[in-house]
Amino acid sequence: MAINTRLTQKLNLEWPIISAPMAIAGGGKLAAEVTRGGGLGLIGGGYGDSEFIGQAFQDAGNSRVGIGFITWSLAKQPELLDQALEHSPDVVMLSFGDPSIFSQKIKQAGATLICQCQTIAQLSQALDAGADIVVAQGGEAGGHGGIRGTMNFVPEASDLLKTHSPDTLLLAAGGIGDGRGIAASLMLGADGVLIGSRYWASKEALVSNAFQKAALAASGDETLQTDIPDVARGLEWPTGNEIRVLKNRLMEEFHPRSKQLSHDELAELKAKYLSANPNDNAQEGGIIVGEVAGIIRDIPGAGVLTRRLGIETKIALSTAY
Amino acid sequence: MAINTRLTQKLNLEWPIISAPMAIAGGGKLAAEVTRGGGLGLIGGGYGDSEFIGQAFQDAGNSRVGIGFITWSLAKQPELLDQALEHSPDVVMLSFGDPSIFSQKIKQAGATLICQCQTIAQLSQALDAGADIVVAQGGEAGGHGGIRGTMNFVPEASDLLKTHSPDTLLLAAGGIGDGRGIAASLMLGADGVLIGSRYWASKEALVSNAFQKAALAASGDETLQTDIPDVARGLEWPTGNEIRVLKNRLMEEFHPRSKQLSHDELAELKAKYLSANPNDNAQEGGIIVGEVAGIIRDIPGAGVLTRRLGIETKIALSTAY
Repeated sequence: MAINTRLTQKLNLEWPIISAPMAIAGGGKLAAEVTRGGGLGLIGGGYGDSEFIGQAFQDAGNSRVGIGFITWSLAKQPELLDQALEHSPDVVMLSFGDPSIFSQKIKQAGATLICQCQTIAQLSQALDAGADIVVAQGGEAGGHGGIRGTMNFVPEASDLLKTHSPDTLLLAAGGIGDGRGIAASLMLGADGVLIGSRYWASKEALVSNAFQKAALAASGDETLQTDIPDVARGLEWPTGNEIRVLKNRLMEEFHPRSKQLSHDELAELKAKYLSANPNDNAQEGGIIVGEVAGIIRDIPGAGVLTRRLGIETKIALSTAY
Repeated sequence: MAINTRLTQKLNLEWPIISAPMAIAGGGKLAAEVTRGGGLGLIGGGYGDSEFIGQAFQDAGNSRVGIGFITWSLAKQPELLDQALEHSPDVVMLSFGDPSIFSQKIKQAGATLICQCQTIAQLSQALDAGADIVVAQGGEAGGHGGIRGTMNFVPEASDLLKTHSPDTLLLAAGGIGDGRGIAASLMLGADGVLIGSRYWASKEALVSNAFQKAALAASGDETLQTDIPDVARGLEWPTGNEIRVLKNRLMEEFHPRSKQLSHDELAELKAKYLSANPNDNAQEGGIIVGEVAGIIRDIPGAGVLTRRLGIETKIALSTAY
């Protein structure tokens, strides 16, 4: 049993599923498990930590994996791309920033280039940069994102590709947490999906178990887009994207006045935020998960999860109407 | 050729498609054409205008149609519900406000009760009110709406119904503009769809042709949620929902300071807004359409459009993977 799309053909996968390169949460073990389950796992290159990247490729062992970077952050430490390419990743994904700076080097190294987009305007930029695969990411996604709804952004992106670049593949992202969402994505014209939050809630994700449990208990109504995690970490996002997290005490306290924090309040926010993850304090941390938290109810291993997602998709697609 | 779901069985339809009861834009001719095409058309009861409602039922002739109301507005003029029920509508839909005030009367009249929801919390309220069908409306929708993404709100709503009220049917709404979106909605667990914007851009919609043309030319990136149309019309929405419209000169001018308008500016806004529709001035009006504008490319008759939507859905569902 498998699913056949242009994505599974291009990357030789069993299921049209790629795991999102989640900064901090997405290490090598998670990526390798997704690949073992029949998808393709991506390491989260994140904000550029050479040690993390080295460790992640080591943890992935001999497994096929890819890696993703935050483009504007990579531009500050371009040597991290060279480090990654030495491991011959199957794919390199770029998000949030101008991909044209790195696209040539990535393609010359033989890796498939994926560019993630939050607007139609960015899709054109990705095509100009020579993207092999583009991701249309809806704003319901966990972590940094835009404001388009996945449900209509994906078919609009598909139409644009059909007209201007029919050989470029399309992934749907944002709000996809089970086989229903994957099947829906295929209906909308995607060749596959990029899944973050559902893998964030897996055994191999580098996430506080208390954070995961808080997400499991939440409805999708209980998330918001905010700049609080970036303010706390001192990350200035030049692209202006906010980050979707679960509502908790920290967000209730600081989000409404994130632009007017005093020096002391900022110090308090930083201290709380940074200690929350190691202390398993779900009320004071940044629980970086999307609206899809509302349909996540367990913390499986990422390999068995990938296989389950594939089979659920197959079942959804085989329903007769 | 037809599609078989619980919705088509319950309401005896060819396609699982209901047109949204768009205030002002959705008259009787539009509703009748949707029904003639194999779906079910709903008259937009809107803000309660007895003359409009009477005319709409007259325009619908002998066609099966339903009607939808803005609940908080209907509560100010409850006699409009009695007027509507005299026409024996197949369904009555309630949106934005507590449906329990009217649910008993609607069901006793023999009409099917549809309740539209923007949050999981509202779904529970709709079930308590005895809704036969609930709508999970994503924030990408045109007009008034919430902030959830359709892509994940629908499966979460479906799970809630399966557990608490398995006989209640579910419609997806928000961002659905062609057969791809309808097929995707079925995959997500919906029994059918409620479609607004796509019918707003049809021949029978009571909309300025210049407004429709502006929407056809726009990408889905070019909408926003704002309170400007309500400020201009003096409508105080107790539910706090904003309204999604196309970006144009009026929105650029007034949206950023909608809460701080002087008396003169407010008068200017009102004058511009109200004259824009009759004057076909797309730069100064409220072009009430959703993100799905990005995939709308023509202004067909609503009957032929409904049939096309159904056939597109059938094709999408029959793709082999």
